[in-house]
Amino acid sequence: MPPIKRTLQSGEELLIARYFEPLARHAGAFGLEDDAAAIEPPAGCDLVLKADGIIAGVHFFSDDPPETIGKKALRVNLSDLAAKSAKPLGFLLTLALPKEIGEAWLAPFAGGLGADAELFDCPLLGGDTDRTGGPITISIAAFGAVPHGRMVRRAGAKPGDRVVVTGTIGDATLGLLQRLDPDAPARWSLKTPQQDHLRSRYLVPQPRNAIAELLRQHASAAMDISDGLVGDLMKLCRASGVDAVIETERVPLSDAARAVLARDPARLEAILTGGDDYEILATVAPEELDPFLREAARRDIAITEIGTLDAGEGQVRVLDKNGAALAFARPSFSHF
Amino acid sequence: MPPIKRTLQSGEELLIARYFEPLARHAGAFGLEDDAAAIEPPAGCDLVLKADGIIAGVHFFSDDPPETIGKKALRVNLSDLAAKSAKPLGFLLTLALPKEIGEAWLAPFAGGLGADAELFDCPLLGGDTDRTGGPITISIAAFGAVPHGRMVRRAGAKPGDRVVVTGTIGDATLGLLQRLDPDAPARWSLKTPQQDHLRSRYLVPQPRNAIAELLRQHASAAMDISDGLVGDLMKLCRASGVDAVIETERVPLSDAARAVLARDPARLEAILTGGDDYEILATVAPEELDPFLREAARRDIAITEIGTLDAGEGQVRVLDKNGAALAFARPSFSHF
Repeated sequence: MPPIKRTLQSGEELLIARYFEPLARHAGAFGLEDDAAAIEPPAGCDLVLKADGIIAGVHFFSDDPPETIGKKALRVNLSDLAAKSAKPLGFLLTLALPKEIGEAWLAPFAGGLGADAELFDCPLLGGDTDRTGGPITISIAAFGAVPHGRMVRRAGAKPGDRVVVTGTIGDATLGLLQRLDPDAPARWSLKTPQQDHLRSRYLVPQPRNAIAELLRQHASAAMDISDGLVGDLMKLCRASGVDAVIETERVPLSDAARAVLARDPARLEAILTGGDDYEILATVAPEELDPFLREAARRDIAITEIGTLDAGEGQVRVLDKNGAALAFARPSFSHF
Repeated sequence: MPPIKRTLQSGEELLIARYFEPLARHAGAFGLEDDAAAIEPPAGCDLVLKADGIIAGVHFFSDDPPETIGKKALRVNLSDLAAKSAKPLGFLLTLALPKEIGEAWLAPFAGGLGADAELFDCPLLGGDTDRTGGPITISIAAFGAVPHGRMVRRAGAKPGDRVVVTGTIGDATLGLLQRLDPDAPARWSLKTPQQDHLRSRYLVPQPRNAIAELLRQHASAAMDISDGLVGDLMKLCRASGVDAVIETERVPLSDAARAVLARDPARLEAILTGGDDYEILATVAPEELDPFLREAARRDIAITEIGTLDAGEGQVRVLDKNGAALAFARPSFSHF
């Protein structure tokens, strides 16, 4: 970003000074007054690097609250750092804005982003703002630190390991379906708090950075669930060279998701394959399971065992309550 | 990016495997098979972090050759690393593509990007691909290393220092004007090689990474010129708390730019304020000037002294050949 001084000249400099300089508290961001940031990496650590973008009309609705858009943009990246067991160090922001976007949008957007930068101790280090002829496009590159050679990989899971997930699965997808079909809440007999829960889970993911370190201590492999539980588990199994069996009855569901399933059992597929969960999927050796569950509970993060791994090459079997294997049209979300 | 295996499933995975995995040669990219990259920072170094985006219809034309778009996306970031005296370590790519973009565009785009990743020793470490309802939008976050505390800043220039620039100024802006006005080359009596030179300077910047280390040894401040020489010099002067005087007669121009000025002297303003030069603007203490020029010449990079610094608060005076100060409507490009 361009330099920021009280003797401002361009609209771009004004915008950055007003909305983004307050987020750039790290000394290495140089108050966004230089061309680049400089940070001293923590001794003995590797840097974990991740970039993910969100686009209006693809990952969010352009009329979503700007505050939640700012939070979502950062949190989808924080979720990856958590899954890789990395402690956040900071992020770079690339923002492309249509010309109708002004103060009324930027102020709450930067407010949401700044609140999360604070909450997750992940300061803004720099970036770039441009106008675009297209939709709001936000790209964040996030950096974290992990002791040298200790990043938790997708590869690393072993036959016999247990499959676990954090939180609850499917809420964000149901929140999206509810948003796309205004009649759905009535059809599903959802109470207002249940509708709010699903809506909120779609708008604002809850990245599990509080257990990043526990993953390093206890997990054999991990990733965050962004493209659907079943498809993402397939990716982990392929990377590790194992097969998995999970049981739908064990998959943790919110009260709201259970209510949807009671009225519309066919939504199970959306729940298991829909994506946007931003929960962590991990594999744990049997002897590590109890200490992992105990330590996670101390951090108020629910972890649920949903299946086991076998020798194999990346197959995932999903068993219903009668032990029958389910088939899915599309196990995972893909943009292409 | 999602994992890549021979048992591919989604179009997104296929696309990444075919076009981007070959660019991810760094071991820490894990062949783009994990959620994030991990790199061991060089000992005793700070990380220099930069993100910059380019958008079709804003920074390039959607029908520019895809190969040059790939090069430009990386080079605008490499140019910042060079100006900050950092050695490139790698980059993350966030790509948002309209649905009509397929193999015919992606293959040469990735080819251009990969050739430059090789040329500048700056490997692809990871990223994200999405569909967009808008124009092609490419965001790159680039990382470099610099000895601890030694990043060359915008702040640091002192009264008495000399102002220097690399290469030639204004070519990219003239290349853009020529592209926007097909009659311009005839009006400017440009020969074909001159037209090609301006076109090429707009399409493919020439980042000066070969002198990154020399800047650390000899420069008191530096930045790359992306928004126009005069405006960017103002930014450097404000950050350093100095004034500058530069002489238009000393500003290095290509043969093509001289030809334009001979026919159309009013284009001097575009040359000095237009941007997209991606040359380096630096300030050098008088006693450092000769060794800096000598070492740069050994690396085949032209450096030209164009002015001097005085005590002040960020004013820049531009003197014409008669010593008269020029005024500009807009000293620097801004998107807002």
